[in-house]
Amino acid sequence: MPPAHPFDTSWLRDCDSEDKLREECGVFGVINVAEAASFVALGLHALQHRGQEAGGIVCHDAEQGFNSARRFGYVRDNFTKQSVMETLPGPIAVGHVRYSTTGGKAPQIRDVQPFFGEFAMGGAAIAHNGNITNADALRRELIERGSIFQSSSDSECIIHLMARSLQRTIPDRMEDALRRVEGAFSVVAMTRTKLIGVRDPLGVRPLVLGQIGEGWVLSSETCALDIIGAKYVREVSPGEMVVITADGVESRYPFRPQKSRFCIFEHVYFSRPDSIIGGRSVYETRRQIGVELAREAPVEADLVCPVPDSGTPAAIGFAHESGIPYSMGIVRNQYMGRTFIEPTEQIRNMGVRLKLNVNRALIEGKRVILVDDSVVRGTTSRKIREMILEAGAAEVHFRIASPPTAWPCFYGVDTPQREKLLAATMSEEEMREHLNVDSLKFISLDGLYRAVGEAEGRNVACPQYCDACFSGEYPVEPSDQIEKGFELKAAE
Amino acid sequence: MPPAHPFDTSWLRDCDSEDKLREECGVFGVINVAEAASFVALGLHALQHRGQEAGGIVCHDAEQGFNSARRFGYVRDNFTKQSVMETLPGPIAVGHVRYSTTGGKAPQIRDVQPFFGEFAMGGAAIAHNGNITNADALRRELIERGSIFQSSSDSECIIHLMARSLQRTIPDRMEDALRRVEGAFSVVAMTRTKLIGVRDPLGVRPLVLGQIGEGWVLSSETCALDIIGAKYVREVSPGEMVVITADGVESRYPFRPQKSRFCIFEHVYFSRPDSIIGGRSVYETRRQIGVELAREAPVEADLVCPVPDSGTPAAIGFAHESGIPYSMGIVRNQYMGRTFIEPTEQIRNMGVRLKLNVNRALIEGKRVILVDDSVVRGTTSRKIREMILEAGAAEVHFRIASPPTAWPCFYGVDTPQREKLLAATMSEEEMREHLNVDSLKFISLDGLYRAVGEAEGRNVACPQYCDACFSGEYPVEPSDQIEKGFELKAAE
Amino acid sequence: MPPAHPFDTSWLRDCDSEDKLREECGVFGVINVAEAASFVALGLHALQHRGQEAGGIVCHDAEQGFNSARRFGYVRDNFTKQSVMETLPGPIAVGHVRYSTTGGKAPQIRDVQPFFGEFAMGGAAIAHNGNITNADALRRELIERGSIFQSSSDSECIIHLMARSLQRTIPDRMEDALRRVEGAFSVVAMTRTKLIGVRDPLGVRPLVLGQIGEGWVLSSETCALDIIGAKYVREVSPGEMVVITADGVESRYPFRPQKSRFCIFEHVYFSRPDSIIGGRSVYETRRQIGVELAREAPVEADLVCPVPDSGTPAAIGFAHESGIPYSMGIVRNQYMGRTFIEPTEQIRNMGVRLKLNVNRALIEGKRVILVDDSVVRGTTSRKIREMILEAGAAEVHFRIASPPTAWPCFYGVDTPQREKLLAATMSEEEMREHLNVDSLKFISLDGLYRAVGEAEGRNVACPQYCDACFSGEYPVEPSDQIEKGFELKAAE
Amino acid sequence: MPPAHPFDTSWLRDCDSEDKLREECGVFGVINVAEAASFVALGLHALQHRGQEAGGIVCHDAEQGFNSARRFGYVRDNFTKQSVMETLPGPIAVGHVRYSTTGGKAPQIRDVQPFFGEFAMGGAAIAHNGNITNADALRRELIERGSIFQSSSDSECIIHLMARSLQRTIPDRMEDALRRVEGAFSVVAMTRTKLIGVRDPLGVRPLVLGQIGEGWVLSSETCALDIIGAKYVREVSPGEMVVITADGVESRYPFRPQKSRFCIFEHVYFSRPDSIIGGRSVYETRRQIGVELAREAPVEADLVCPVPDSGTPAAIGFAHESGIPYSMGIVRNQYMGRTFIEPTEQIRNMGVRLKLNVNRALIEGKRVILVDDSVVRGTTSRKIREMILEAGAAEVHFRIASPPTAWPCFYGVDTPQREKLLAATMSEEEMREHLNVDSLKFISLDGLYRAVGEAEGRNVACPQYCDACFSGEYPVEPSDQIEKGFELKAAE
Repeated sequence: MPPAHPFDTSWLRDCDSEDKLREECGVFGVINVAEAASFVALGLHALQHRGQEAGGIVCHDAEQGFNSARRFGYVRDNFTKQSVMETLPGPIAVGHVRYSTTGGKAPQIRDVQPFFGEFAMGGAAIAHNGNITNADALRRELIERGSIFQSSSDSECIIHLMARSLQRTIPDRMEDALRRVEGAFSVVAMTRTKLIGVRDPLGVRPLVLGQIGEGWVLSSETCALDIIGAKYVREVSPGEMVVITADGVESRYPFRPQKSRFCIFEHVYFSRPDSIIGGRSVYETRRQIGVELAREAPVEADLVCPVPDSGTPAAIGFAHESGIPYSMGIVRNQYMGRTFIEPTEQIRNMGVRLKLNVNRALIEGKRVILVDDSVVRGTTSRKIREMILEAGAAEVHFRIASPPTAWPCFYGVDTPQREKLLAATMSEEEMREHLNVDSLKFISLDGLYRAVGEAEGRNVACPQYCDACFSGEYPVEPSDQIEKGFELKAAE
Repeated sequence: MPPAHPFDTSWLRDCDSEDKLREECGVFGVINVAEAASFVALGLHALQHRGQEAGGIVCHDAEQGFNSARRFGYVRDNFTKQSVMETLPGPIAVGHVRYSTTGGKAPQIRDVQPFFGEFAMGGAAIAHNGNITNADALRRELIERGSIFQSSSDSECIIHLMARSLQRTIPDRMEDALRRVEGAFSVVAMTRTKLIGVRDPLGVRPLVLGQIGEGWVLSSETCALDIIGAKYVREVSPGEMVVITADGVESRYPFRPQKSRFCIFEHVYFSRPDSIIGGRSVYETRRQIGVELAREAPVEADLVCPVPDSGTPAAIGFAHESGIPYSMGIVRNQYMGRTFIEPTEQIRNMGVRLKLNVNRALIEGKRVILVDDSVVRGTTSRKIREMILEAGAAEVHFRIASPPTAWPCFYGVDTPQREKLLAATMSEEEMREHLNVDSLKFISLDGLYRAVGEAEGRNVACPQYCDACFSGEYPVEPSDQIEKGFELKAAE
Repeated sequence: MPPAHPFDTSWLRDCDSEDKLREECGVFGVINVAEAASFVALGLHALQHRGQEAGGIVCHDAEQGFNSARRFGYVRDNFTKQSVMETLPGPIAVGHVRYSTTGGKAPQIRDVQPFFGEFAMGGAAIAHNGNITNADALRRELIERGSIFQSSSDSECIIHLMARSLQRTIPDRMEDALRRVEGAFSVVAMTRTKLIGVRDPLGVRPLVLGQIGEGWVLSSETCALDIIGAKYVREVSPGEMVVITADGVESRYPFRPQKSRFCIFEHVYFSRPDSIIGGRSVYETRRQIGVELAREAPVEADLVCPVPDSGTPAAIGFAHESGIPYSMGIVRNQYMGRTFIEPTEQIRNMGVRLKLNVNRALIEGKRVILVDDSVVRGTTSRKIREMILEAGAAEVHFRIASPPTAWPCFYGVDTPQREKLLAATMSEEEMREHLNVDSLKFISLDGLYRAVGEAEGRNVACPQYCDACFSGEYPVEPSDQIEKGFELKAAE
Repeated sequence: MPPAHPFDTSWLRDCDSEDKLREECGVFGVINVAEAASFVALGLHALQHRGQEAGGIVCHDAEQGFNSARRFGYVRDNFTKQSVMETLPGPIAVGHVRYSTTGGKAPQIRDVQPFFGEFAMGGAAIAHNGNITNADALRRELIERGSIFQSSSDSECIIHLMARSLQRTIPDRMEDALRRVEGAFSVVAMTRTKLIGVRDPLGVRPLVLGQIGEGWVLSSETCALDIIGAKYVREVSPGEMVVITADGVESRYPFRPQKSRFCIFEHVYFSRPDSIIGGRSVYETRRQIGVELAREAPVEADLVCPVPDSGTPAAIGFAHESGIPYSMGIVRNQYMGRTFIEPTEQIRNMGVRLKLNVNRALIEGKRVILVDDSVVRGTTSRKIREMILEAGAAEVHFRIASPPTAWPCFYGVDTPQREKLLAATMSEEEMREHLNVDSLKFISLDGLYRAVGEAEGRNVACPQYCDACFSGEYPVEPSDQIEKGFELKAAE
């Protein structure tokens, strides 16, 4: 095997992500504040869970024009340095954190957003959270017509479509461009004088509007408003474009109206528990999932233990509903980080033990319920089960705070190919056997919908959320994927 | 103020330690395994919470002799690199992580342990957790007699005392040296063929013995045995020296026997919750502190929230005992780390908000009990109270899982000077006013003793633990400090 | 003043370039050899004198497709690392070293060539030495039509013009593109299977063809053929395009034929003395300039000293012709490099003394002739004169191996604005007074032409070389500059 | 083969040193100036040719006490950074540059001088140029008596001997210590208030005294006085100790007087050509060696070419005396440096071609005299001969500006073991055959003495210089070496 590339994060992904689906991006922008880039840095730090591979900031200053910085690594390690931040002056800035999707190839700095384009009427930068499902086709068409792509990112299509638009203003060109684009997108963009936010017509990815003093903020989540002390105003609506200047916020609606289909997995895992989505506390929703799960799949046991840290709120809810004591049966090493950049063979083999340890004295002889947020490939679940049994547990029961993940996401989430998803190839009972646990239960799709506030459960005719990863029902046809051979779920 | 030194961690300490006392060291050693240094690296990673500033490993190989590496920063960032680890061959190794105590001066790599000395009968390396209370006097005497000190560390005295001993073997010289030393020490040392562990007569600092295959392990805590898959054998006894070779473990007792006085704060905060001390789960003890606290200081409220992450077990216990729901009212940013090395002014001012965020939707209008492990200077407690009130809490009640910290520790813990300790200058009611909360209660000293398993509480005549930081009763006279003007508690 | 940007090289330029004109680029390409990128790395190392700020390599491998690496800093520090070179596989590669021309702004990695474009028929990379004099106009036009520029480099125009061409093959598109371009260019480009070299119709910048085993090489200078052991074949002709495959070399002539105007300053300073241009040794030409200078401007003196290192060959010639002993009166510090990245104030003020020292024992009481290659702003010349006088020289005579540099170059050389050129604002006698030396003489333009082999001197009607920096006669109209207000020399 | 250690410089040594003997150290100190450490940094930069592996500075400030910094790499890369220099305040400082002698082991920062010791009467730092020939014996004795060595350096003995001295002042202790030491030493040391310089009784290594304003300077060479603008006062005499305070210079003579034996190789190669030794210009001496060589070993030829850069002065002298034109037949790549830290296999194999290139156009068909300063192992000479012949030279004649190097130096110079020295195993004719050149001549020992100003040549009874590397006559018995099996030259 060739020595690991300095930026080969494939191994880290396995280890750090604990076998999770991963949100691929977070976006943030601010206008009409002093040192806007510093606010963006803080906002991106609060959104770091949405993308850890790299981050970028573009800003504009009346005297110095546009400036930008893009770096691999954490926000805290790059965008806190005097030497970097002093190159980013001005009252308007946008930023982006990303989680790689380039697969085999080493990530390149030119793939790091925001992307910037110089148009006849001036420059613009855009940061994109989501995924364009017809990007391959668009790219082929644009290259045919003479566009030069600099990155391997689907998001770059937007900037080239804007460059080719015949409209006179940048917001108009962005409307033009986004009408050609299919898929999921929450975009934060800027010109010399405007901050622009857009969500796709289904509103798959989140985007919120906030206010700070005389300034305005756009952010993937509300937790990033909190860190800078901004006030939450409202969500940008599905299909809405907001064009913000020093004078205020203008709303436009470039797309044909549709019923919204927000990503239900943002509630389950992606968003931070201290964010508010659709007026609901994410933490409270997750706790409620645990409550539903305890009702749907009760079991006699001595302890309810979360798989840290993402299983914690559902475990609290499960314990509360079931009356079985909540307990820290698994402890996480706070110093793990993502920086075992060059691990020796021995350390690679340690796998999950580098990060998690079983609280042996607590577990020994006990019947343990482990609450986790999801099972993707099942690799981590197996290792945890092993650790728990080694520590002497009498029984191990897995309770999963989401339905079986049986379909890949094509809307901006890093998922394994379908055949790698445990639930795509096994029944629940087969999975239980594979994981070798005493019981394994997933929350039902209806139970999940109830937990997010839909008292009647899922509306089968017209689902209230995008739940393609569970249901295989894709609200936007993944045309590039189909061209590459992906098979949609057969009509029943 | 001059620009921050690259290794000036004073600011980080404030921010990262959330106003805590900090253990200053962790030690780990292994003998009779292949690639011993790799095991030490993993052990130190598991002990990283005991010291984050720097780490070092010394090892010995029959062909290549002694080798060493010392680095600033996390274990995971240094001792995982092929280029470092391949310079550390051999079947025996010892390691050390440290938390700086050098105060104003920039830390120097020569202060990073293990220390190494070449004696007439061969080399030896020692790693020390604790603090030598007569180090200043010893150092003066040794310099007078011609020793050259390379570090500013009190621990270096041991190696010079060994060099001057007239004994023929290294273990004998170590006995000689340690009999001259006062204070707290858990030492892990090595020669070409021996791994040696010693605890001071009072056993203030922890040290455990483990076994892995044909090999033996010494470690500050059991959690570091778990990470390498070693079996826990027993604690090294207070006053015991174990001399381990490939052939087995020999016990010696170099000191006059005394009643042991283990550090009670290891139970409260220093040790990891998944470690076992004196046969008790640290997590379970902390949970029991919460139970005791709920009994001693009940209050009507809607939520029990831990101050993450150290308040969590006590909060679970408090919630369980009181019947008030346990809730994640404060959320911690997982990406904080300790690496805001060069923060801009704006980021410095963010303080605790970089790391913690209030779960606004949960807190609003609620009466909140916050459970924290300790109050040192009170700075972080005030900021948290502010955040909670800003988020709209109706009442804020602090419950603290340790008695008021009113005295500095001189046995290997980083404490502020006495006048900086809130509890040294204020009564409980004054502290409540200072923190401006609705109520503030600390667990009683007896309650704490009950939680660690002493059903009768504290034996006033002869306390079972070292609790000097609460009681001002120092089991070993801090002679260097007294010489510098420190005043012991007046006899009552 | 804000702290220096990590890549602010403005200060270094002053110090390192000793007040010189600087060539801005070197190009190198190779086809049909194993590990082509390694050869390119060596070639670029040999061409490092043509550009020290950054370097880049693009290569192509049948399996792994195109790969690239771009780095700031020296070739030897970047393109020798296993971790970098193993990402650059394949039998064909092109590379580029550059000297920044971005002026005030911090250099960006996206400005580092070779540039790469994906066209409908496949990818291509191009590396450009020279300067496009109508780049501003082209860029405006291309942006108007929807191209997105990624860099601030004039060279990027070529790739966008190629993207817009309607031709079917990459060489054909390159012809299309280069016919739109004005100015000076020696281009080395590659596709998946072809190595392409082009020189502008006047052949202002050099480009040579070499052969190594079964493979072919293109390089700015012959010294880079030597380092890899390649055989010199011939120069690419002015106006010629060579398209090289594994099967051989095809010549095309895309441009209207013109009389060539090679840059005469390549002979004076830019090229390495061990290169061969137009069949002549560069060293020998420079030595001959010294001979001519001794004939034109003799003076009685004790020593002839070069200003190291560029004045050496002319000084040898001057000494030989005059019979005055050649002597190392000024010694250069070999460890200067370009890496005083973050100099303290005191070191900034040291200026030239960090780099040069007078051989005091030699100079004292002597009449010294200093031979330098050129005088640009005169700042370094003044400092050297000071050092020499401080060391006790009786007389100082400057002899300059080029005519007065009175006009900026717009063909790929970094020159100060016209008003900063000493010779643009002063007569020779005024310069002598300004430098405060006993005599100052420049070689005549005819003398220079004789030294490069034109026995009759300069052909005024139709000069054999581009000598715009001396004569103000620009063979290609600098249209972008004229638009910005540059005034051509008034017709006489 | 294991991957190269980050600091494995063995390969670099071969390549960079061009098969030379290498001086191992340079020392510099200054007192009574503001920001003394900055002056030391500049001085060490000027002495960088005496040691490139690492450098260190110790300084003292009334408020901040002693501070130090030690770094691997060039002075210009470390001791120019604000962040480093601001930690080095105060009016007195000493520094050291070193060339590694640790052989196989990776260099350790603890081996980097100046060494520091805390004595009962205060601290002292010492920097040592030279080599202690009885260091092994001293070290054994000191360890036996309880000293702990931190480095593998022979120089550390001095500090331990000082620590054990019963004298009351540091200069007195240093006298005590140095009287126990055998070998060659030029020491620069400091206390809180004193700058101290000492040369061994034979004065083998250089040390000069300078003055700058109210301050005083000690330096290995005069070129380092020039860079800071200090005035040369005089050499420290062999056997003299100067103790300098703000009040002036006191001279002591701690040793039994002996006839001096200065290292003649300092004249040949080690010192910079712009330094002055014993009142003579080093450049002028080397030029004179060329003159002598032309007289002793004339040959008919077309060109005299130096092997750059060290052969240059002798080549100038040879050309002048012989009337054969001086010519740059070999050109050196200015960008070589020492930083091919991680070369690929291909680059390792390039060897000397990375650094030197033949001026083909000049050499072809010519009879060439190559003047080099010395032949050590002959590896580089062979490669150069090959390159010259490949370029088409008709004849190649080597003229060497030193006698055959047949004996290792034990006084602070890095020499291969005796059996690796070409001249130790071959006669001049055998060497000529081995190098495969038309002729090979070394200057005679008498010729060399004449060139350094001894009109009568070498005084066989009592040589004026240390010339052990040529003659095998060691003025100080290398006792450690003899113990390890080194055989002195048999008496004739």
